Amino acid sequence: MTDLDDFTITIVGLGLMGGSLGGALRGQCRVVVGVARRPETVERALARGLIDRGTTDLADGVATADVVVLATPVRVILDLIPQIGPLLPEGCLLMDLGSTKTHVVRAMQRLPAHVQPLGGHPMCGKEVSGIAAADPALYRGCTFILSPLAHTSERAMALGQALARAAGAHPLVLDAGRQDFLVGTVSHLPYLLACALVSTADATTSADPAAWQIVASGFRDTSRVAGSDVTMMLDILMTNREDILKALEHFDAALHKLYHLVESSDEQNLRMTLDVIREKRREMFP
Amino acid sequence: MTDLDDFTITIVGLGLMGGSLGGALRGQCRVVVGVARRPETVERALARGLIDRGTTDLADGVATADVVVLATPVRVILDLIPQIGPLLPEGCLLMDLGSTKTHVVRAMQRLPAHVQPLGGHPMCGKEVSGIAAADPALYRGCTFILSPLAHTSERAMALGQALARAAGAHPLVLDAGRQDFLVGTVSHLPYLLACALVSTADATTSADPAAWQIVASGFRDTSRVAGSDVTMMLDILMTNREDILKALEHFDAALHKLYHLVESSDEQNLRMTLDVIREKRREMFP
Repeated sequence: MTDLDDFTITIVGLGLMGGSLGGALRGQCRVVVGVARRPETVERALARGLIDRGTTDLADGVATADVVVLATPVRVILDLIPQIGPLLPEGCLLMDLGSTKTHVVRAMQRLPAHVQPLGGHPMCGKEVSGIAAADPALYRGCTFILSPLAHTSERAMALGQALARAAGAHPLVLDAGRQDFLVGTVSHLPYLLACALVSTADATTSADPAAWQIVASGFRDTSRVAGSDVTMMLDILMTNREDILKALEHFDAALHKLYHLVESSDEQNLRMTLDVIREKRREMFP
Repeated sequence: MTDLDDFTITIVGLGLMGGSLGGALRGQCRVVVGVARRPETVERALARGLIDRGTTDLADGVATADVVVLATPVRVILDLIPQIGPLLPEGCLLMDLGSTKTHVVRAMQRLPAHVQPLGGHPMCGKEVSGIAAADPALYRGCTFILSPLAHTSERAMALGQALARAAGAHPLVLDAGRQDFLVGTVSHLPYLLACALVSTADATTSADPAAWQIVASGFRDTSRVAGSDVTMMLDILMTNREDILKALEHFDAALHKLYHLVESSDEQNLRMTLDVIREKRREMFP
């Protein structure tokens, strides 16, 4: 197994994801360098012990890095990739933490040959963003998707997996297109449903002051992800549009089926349908 | 404040809701009597210390009751109300725990004059059902909706509130129609969304073995209530049909709005819409 002991790891972007990763890796590698746009963010990351060293200068931050992790919203990652390529030392592994991978991997294909590229997507998060919410335990137990490119070396791949494991996550290798299709349904669709649910409650029941006294745990849970960072989600929606629209169309059909079963009071088929769904949910989360 | 010390409380139906209520009230009133259809259920409730005394005979169970709580699915409650009326002692308070109230309150209007009727709906639950899942802490901190009838006495109302508080819940008085409209959106709609989401994932991504390794907490939370007891949910859907269909129509419009914003890549309006929704969610759960 690859050991991180001797490596310098630079994290670009010290928000929830980047700050948490720094905190998780610090002490397991030679040094964790943090790069942020604002000096206050660097100071807070240092004060919280999430990084060993910090800078607002990208070139300085990556100059001696063995691994660079881009931890910004997806479209900032897409802007950073061509900028950062020429700044990276020979053999440096360039990873990212973006939630969509097709565009990222495409941008990584144009990196100079001395860089080892590897798409990454840890399946964890919170509805709070920024360094203040960073938590070194955030990655523990989550699946960390890795999307290699055709020319990603075995050594680079092993290093990416070691990094995921060092953060407490389980690496899972998935082609970028397949990952985008799957997360479109299991992650991006639930976000839009949560948003539409909040919007519905706001339009129909929020005029009644009793409404918010009775919101049950079902509503709280189903709407939770509607609190996610909007800039991050907007980037996701715009870079996984096709898969998300397809997932929405499937969902629409499933919901209309339920609507018609309720409307027609077709109890026998409604029970059968709900029984099958309940069983599926149990298979998914035994 | 009304004291339950001297009261005999009979709970009809010893599933998750009834068993948990028994466990919560036991020791705070003279005696908790449990009535179930099957002798095994009565035995389990006694063995778990959820009731003081149990029987499978409805007439015997309610003969000396000061309060009777119907804790079965809604349509069994509707069947029980006319049967149980003549069996109740003079002045007995008859409550229920059904999730929809319009039909229940209508059935309670036909009870004999010696009975004090009060609709009840505690906003708590789990996706597991039956006495095995009963938990005396289930009601703690939840809102317990009480829907009085025109002739419900102040004394009966105070007793209902005392019972809710003794279980650890916060009583909230709401007219039956208003409660059904509100829970249609904040409770029954999230159930159908969770079901349609599971159904979508099953239809689109479940063929890929990687799908279930990457289900993030967003999906788990948004789909949680799809595991709810089907008989209970079917009764709810059938007795709150109109309000649920209206909530579904509102949701459908909200989701289509989001669909079109994503489809047309109208980022400015999408961001504005998502920002408003995020703010609303924060107001709902500060």
